[in-house]
Amino acid sequence: MWSYDKITDYLMNNLGEKRYKHSLGVMDTAVRLAGIYNEDTEKARIAGLVHDCAKKLPGEKIIEICTNEGYELGDEDIRNSYLLHGLAGRILAKKVIGIDDEDVLNAIEFHTTGRPNMSLLEKIIYIADYIEPGREFKGVDELRKAADEDLNKALLMSFDNTIKFVIDKGGFLHHNTIEARNYLISRKG
Amino acid sequence: MWSYDKITDYLMNNLGEKRYKHSLGVMDTAVRLAGIYNEDTEKARIAGLVHDCAKKLPGEKIIEICTNEGYELGDEDIRNSYLLHGLAGRILAKKVIGIDDEDVLNAIEFHTTGRPNMSLLEKIIYIADYIEPGREFKGVDELRKAADEDLNKALLMSFDNTIKFVIDKGGFLHHNTIEARNYLISRKG
Repeated sequence: MWSYDKITDYLMNNLGEKRYKHSLGVMDTAVRLAGIYNEDTEKARIAGLVHDCAKKLPGEKIIEICTNEGYELGDEDIRNSYLLHGLAGRILAKKVIGIDDEDVLNAIEFHTTGRPNMSLLEKIIYIADYIEPGREFKGVDELRKAADEDLNKALLMSFDNTIKFVIDKGGFLHHNTIEARNYLISRKG
Repeated sequence: MWSYDKITDYLMNNLGEKRYKHSLGVMDTAVRLAGIYNEDTEKARIAGLVHDCAKKLPGEKIIEICTNEGYELGDEDIRNSYLLHGLAGRILAKKVIGIDDEDVLNAIEFHTTGRPNMSLLEKIIYIADYIEPGREFKGVDELRKAADEDLNKALLMSFDNTIKFVIDKGGFLHHNTIEARNYLISRKG
């Protein structure tokens, strides 16, 4: 795996200043949450730092990366290629940066949509992406508070918030997000 | 098929006054919408009248009717058995009332959740159920106006409204409703 310095150089060159700063914010928040919930802080650090590594690639390039790797993309994926930067990020994280940890790779892949039965690390990265210090939206402080106290509650709040946001802008609802939310409602965890 | 009088007798005896009145409201609204959108008014009349025929059955009875008919119910269905009165209604409409028209039966089955690629009759019954004169909720007049002008627009508004309502009460989101909404967003029809 690349050194921390090589990864930050890569991200600085490929993400632009704003998105790079966001990545550092997600990393710091993920490390803090890992401390609260007893997750491996090094896994949280790497996953948080790297999660958006494919974010600035053009949609066609993202689709190409995914299909070249053998993923069969459905209509839903093609129409919402911006969500695929999670999957493309997973592929780059493994093949370019050399990350092998499956849990870290899953956290990168599913930070865009969530999924049912998420691991602790996946939850931490999803929430950290939502509440890192650079985020500003109605309810973010309430969500930050929830994230420190009850990760599943914060996750449900995030999914609900995302679904309503997507509805209001007339966007496509991803089945992973719906199923992730229903899973939390049903199992309470 | 039973006569109109025999059907209304059955519904009066099995639904209670309020739900029976609702059924007549849906019938009248469906017939009116069928006139606007050139659907068969007799199909709209029967489907509107009968759509809630299983509504007052206990959850266990509804599940029994569906499983006895060979339907394999998933976790999602069992947890949300109130949505199954659509499927149970389809079964009763066919086996007890003697309705054979597939389009009418589908309109009864899917009036609870919607589904992707709905027929005109299915759309009319779904909307009529939402806006019949007895319905009162924030935005219903806007929805009534939309239903007279653009059925797909009204349908999308209904799905969006339902999804937000279910989120606010912490309920389970049915995949059919999500897919029905995404279908409308993608195809605009």
